[in-house]
Amino acid sequence: MPDYRSHVDGARVLADLNALRAIGAYKTGVHKPTFSEPHIRSLHWLAQRLPEAGLTAEIDGIGNVLGTSAKQGPKLLAGSHLESQNYAGWLDGPLGVVYALEAARVINCDPNVPGAVEVAAWCDEEGHFGSFLGSRSYVGGVTEAEIDTARDRSSGKAMRDALREADLTGRPRTNCERGRHIGYLEAHIEQGQTLESSGLKIGVVTSIVGIWQYRIAFTGEQNHAGTTRMADRRDAGLALARFCVEIDNRFPASCGPRTVWTTGRITLDPGAPSIIPGGAEMLFQIRDDDPDVIARLEQLLRGMAADVSAQDRCTVAVECIRTGAPALIDASFQHAIEAASTACAGGKSIRMPSGAGHDAQVLATVMPSAMLFVPSIGGISHHWTENTDDADIVTGAEVYVDACRRLLKG
Amino acid sequence: MPDYRSHVDGARVLADLNALRAIGAYKTGVHKPTFSEPHIRSLHWLAQRLPEAGLTAEIDGIGNVLGTSAKQGPKLLAGSHLESQNYAGWLDGPLGVVYALEAARVINCDPNVPGAVEVAAWCDEEGHFGSFLGSRSYVGGVTEAEIDTARDRSSGKAMRDALREADLTGRPRTNCERGRHIGYLEAHIEQGQTLESSGLKIGVVTSIVGIWQYRIAFTGEQNHAGTTRMADRRDAGLALARFCVEIDNRFPASCGPRTVWTTGRITLDPGAPSIIPGGAEMLFQIRDDDPDVIARLEQLLRGMAADVSAQDRCTVAVECIRTGAPALIDASFQHAIEAASTACAGGKSIRMPSGAGHDAQVLATVMPSAMLFVPSIGGISHHWTENTDDADIVTGAEVYVDACRRLLKG
Repeated sequence: MPDYRSHVDGARVLADLNALRAIGAYKTGVHKPTFSEPHIRSLHWLAQRLPEAGLTAEIDGIGNVLGTSAKQGPKLLAGSHLESQNYAGWLDGPLGVVYALEAARVINCDPNVPGAVEVAAWCDEEGHFGSFLGSRSYVGGVTEAEIDTARDRSSGKAMRDALREADLTGRPRTNCERGRHIGYLEAHIEQGQTLESSGLKIGVVTSIVGIWQYRIAFTGEQNHAGTTRMADRRDAGLALARFCVEIDNRFPASCGPRTVWTTGRITLDPGAPSIIPGGAEMLFQIRDDDPDVIARLEQLLRGMAADVSAQDRCTVAVECIRTGAPALIDASFQHAIEAASTACAGGKSIRMPSGAGHDAQVLATVMPSAMLFVPSIGGISHHWTENTDDADIVTGAEVYVDACRRLLKG
Repeated sequence: MPDYRSHVDGARVLADLNALRAIGAYKTGVHKPTFSEPHIRSLHWLAQRLPEAGLTAEIDGIGNVLGTSAKQGPKLLAGSHLESQNYAGWLDGPLGVVYALEAARVINCDPNVPGAVEVAAWCDEEGHFGSFLGSRSYVGGVTEAEIDTARDRSSGKAMRDALREADLTGRPRTNCERGRHIGYLEAHIEQGQTLESSGLKIGVVTSIVGIWQYRIAFTGEQNHAGTTRMADRRDAGLALARFCVEIDNRFPASCGPRTVWTTGRITLDPGAPSIIPGGAEMLFQIRDDDPDVIARLEQLLRGMAADVSAQDRCTVAVECIRTGAPALIDASFQHAIEAASTACAGGKSIRMPSGAGHDAQVLATVMPSAMLFVPSIGGISHHWTENTDDADIVTGAEVYVDACRRLLKG
């Protein structure tokens, strides 16, 4: 094994991140959807580097990269993901993987630290084929039947075909060995503006918010846009627009301090310029880490829908299509990250929930799990302009590795 | 020529309409898009019937069916269209064609009426491939280049391919012979509730409203729906919803007595449930027969957009993508229809504008043109449940044929 220094090599971290950016580059970001050629190449890139950190590499049957250590003592699982959203940023995923690799390189050859950091890159965190398929497979939550039916949400390609083209067919899927790890640590860009706007460097994640999703369907009457008088109309699209505005007017009085809600998709039926829409549908999402807040907002939403159906010319149906319990983050891990921030980042940290979902919420179902955030410039995320200052990337790596060391030392 | 009675045969009119409904039937309506097999079969059905009315039939190179008479004296052009919107009603188009056919059968063999009724079925009034392609071709307004680039709005099929499959390639397109006709008369279902709600049987059309269409585009900032706080968002979809509601709140104070406006299509970009839309677009249409009203409303619309761009977190761009001058209907033709209504429908008629576009507005550019409406049950249009009471269909035919007779007698 090469004689790595016992501290973080910032230039090496930046070089690794840029090497991953060069695989599937798109402008200053990447286009690296799950099982695309650049994604598979990135998995092999990582597998080739893991031996430098004293780890035995494998790519399992669902595309997870796992690096395991033969070193005695406690094991800490560390990682994130390597695929990207379409035409998205270079750090969302790779940052956490490279931090984990760096921690393994620094710690696993350090005789003063007991045990080892083991590295994971979870496949399809971005949900091209499903929901957290890689990490859920690792904790035993994915059946073969789910893989049989999974398809790429953009291209419609069957996951079985994608796995075969990636030469992953026939490999076993690796399951978590219960009790092997003291826990899981994942670093990620914040994807928001909390750290940047307050001049802080590290977010100590307290919880990962749950996502509740609703299909809200409006039914009016399809008719001719020229011959139907305004007073005779039952315009489902207009009812939907009024509902969106009403949500935005009424939610603030009932929401929690960090609740967010989003209408991400609107469809009018039939969607032609000369036809009054007889149907309209919106996909609506609420995120919070407090189920009581969600319950209150869902009640408000259903009440608003009942009012519209009772008083207006259109009917509204609210269907909950996704519920997500918030994941709590291990308290002792939060303490370790805070202590590392004090040591390496001048204490410039803040406790905050994660508004986005991450593999850590899946790992949290089987072991203590934690996350730390680094700042996102302008809060931009899921876009190729996503970025973080190089100095902040290096500071984050130093805090991350120090937190790993503290956790292994117990 | 068979010895047809000199008056309308209501049973024959209903039988013809039902024969056309049986070609491409969908539930109680039809699915007969332009150049579909049932549409082409309907054109041939009509061409085979025209000789019964003393007319020479041709199907020209754009799919217009034209029946011409060798009879001496004035000629009145009469017709409508045979294709339908997708999965739409049985009367929208065929009613006017069968009335014209019936008028030709009744009048052309009647020695007491000078001249003849000539029958036309204009291709693609419903705009599958373009805007009034058949009637515009007839008046000389369609170039070969326009046909070269025209495509079916649903399937994307090239018009040239559709013409070839319909065996129409190589046929000349027939142009209007200036001065041949004293004018054009078209009957149609009302597609609204004015006649039904007032117990009237005939709408005497005074004008065909113009259609102005706008693409209204909102630009905000695409971001993560979980990590971006509400206060930091620039949600283009929400800006669009607010704009729709604002239009509906402010237009009534500035519109005319029969102005209508419609948002028929809304698109959010990228349209994913976990992404705050950075872009949003609506197709917005205003119809009125008074250009001054349109000008006032467009000014209001642009002012509202400027206010949003100046004050809010999103910008709005309003682009006018279609303008349509209202078509005026010949006054002496209106009188003839009213006189026929008095004679055949107990005077149960009303003067009204047409909120929908029709081939009559194209013919009006080269000859006096007029339209009459019959009631639509529930005002339903562009839907397979579209219907008119059989008795109203027969009354409409009697008024139509009587109006033709009066126009030819001068």
